[in-house]
Amino acid sequence: MTASWIDGVAGDTVPVDDRGLLYGDGLFETVLCMNGTPRFLGLHLQRLQAGCQALDLPMPDLEQVSHEIRRAAAGERACLVRFTLTRGSSPTRGYAPPVPCQPRRIVARYPLQESALPERGIRAGFSTVIAGVSPALAGLKHLNRLENVLARARLAGSGCEEAILSTAAGELVGGTMSNLFLVLDGRLVTPPIVTAGVRGVMRQVVLREAGACGLATAERILMRADLAGASEIFFTNVRLGPWPVGSLEGWRGEAPGPVVRALRQRIATLRD
Amino acid sequence: MTASWIDGVAGDTVPVDDRGLLYGDGLFETVLCMNGTPRFLGLHLQRLQAGCQALDLPMPDLEQVSHEIRRAAAGERACLVRFTLTRGSSPTRGYAPPVPCQPRRIVARYPLQESALPERGIRAGFSTVIAGVSPALAGLKHLNRLENVLARARLAGSGCEEAILSTAAGELVGGTMSNLFLVLDGRLVTPPIVTAGVRGVMRQVVLREAGACGLATAERILMRADLAGASEIFFTNVRLGPWPVGSLEGWRGEAPGPVVRALRQRIATLRD
Repeated sequence: MTASWIDGVAGDTVPVDDRGLLYGDGLFETVLCMNGTPRFLGLHLQRLQAGCQALDLPMPDLEQVSHEIRRAAAGERACLVRFTLTRGSSPTRGYAPPVPCQPRRIVARYPLQESALPERGIRAGFSTVIAGVSPALAGLKHLNRLENVLARARLAGSGCEEAILSTAAGELVGGTMSNLFLVLDGRLVTPPIVTAGVRGVMRQVVLREAGACGLATAERILMRADLAGASEIFFTNVRLGPWPVGSLEGWRGEAPGPVVRALRQRIATLRD
Repeated sequence: MTASWIDGVAGDTVPVDDRGLLYGDGLFETVLCMNGTPRFLGLHLQRLQAGCQALDLPMPDLEQVSHEIRRAAAGERACLVRFTLTRGSSPTRGYAPPVPCQPRRIVARYPLQESALPERGIRAGFSTVIAGVSPALAGLKHLNRLENVLARARLAGSGCEEAILSTAAGELVGGTMSNLFLVLDGRLVTPPIVTAGVRGVMRQVVLREAGACGLATAERILMRADLAGASEIFFTNVRLGPWPVGSLEGWRGEAPGPVVRALRQRIATLRD
């Protein structure tokens, strides 16, 4: 972290009674910024709004949020800006949110190590963490990310760069820090985000831009057996873009394949 | 909150890069302290240890933890001491935990409003929040508590003091801030904590002390239909003890009934 702001003021601490810390009671967005400009900021703000609605969090002033993200990125060639919105401090103890509450905005800038989006195919595996399901929270980029932490921790030393998580019922959810796409019969297919997973911004971008690349899309339940039939497999997040898989326990594919190449080329030209 | 300590030093802020805040990456215990003495501290520390193992968090020195909780409670007639253990600060961004990590201890004291454990039967309902399932996290008192927050928020204004959460499959999980017990054919029955719910300390105490009250116990999957056959229904947490239900959407019962009365009497004599 190279800089941070709390409610618009430079600072690097939050009160211990912040509900983000106490309960994970809040949301965040990690925005990729290139040459001082946030990418896909509109989609990030849309998701933030949807999250506020789902959690009954007062909506922050989106002009102000945009301004704070831009300011954090100003003058940086490439960085990630994390915007966190918590339900603020609780005057009293307990899960029940204070009414009214005073949300807290936390902006933090992180350096971006990668010089360019990675193109080579990665080695992927299956996470030993069984993904939970939560109809109340699915889709949201909330602060309850312990399953991701565990999955990411177990990935270390596995020789894989990303791993697929499945629910106890065997439904594929996504990667440890990404969404998952399969190319099946020339069509882009990704798990629906109904009971598990995050509605990733790059996932939205891929679904939106597929048409311009001549690709049909579908959101449907995918099982592990569906992977065998995929001509391409890739993960998505805003930092890595469509991130092609080269090998996945027996499955091998051209990486980047033609679909990932087309998507990456198209997405590279977009800002929003 | 009337006092707080960070890593043993009086203080009321944590760094913005604390993983408890970033991801809910940590655990907590809320300990009831009477006349300066923590109740059921051994069980709290056991659960903390189990949580550390599950999350691969370095175990804190339990002597030190005990000392810090006792110090927070010293001189107080009645209070709650929340002990939080996070994975500490991350030097870099991302879900992957730093190795090694330096966990952070946060101790906070809260006043206790109640003068005595409530005995009268409460009005309970069914939460409109569908409980998630997470085999990786079930049982742990981790910092990912957004479902509890939502359930508690929706309870406000419902006229109920507690509500039962069920999974999408209809399995009863517990209350919004408590575990759930039914007396069925004279036997104490509570949902197993395998895929959802918290392994509550008061739940452990009740299961442990039931024998001394002449009660058999069982942990088994309970559905909503099982409630109709209950002679008593009660919730448990360390603050409220066995907390009897007087009415629950059609169900009515003596509250406190003989089982709750016997348990409360027994538990009142215990310290650990």
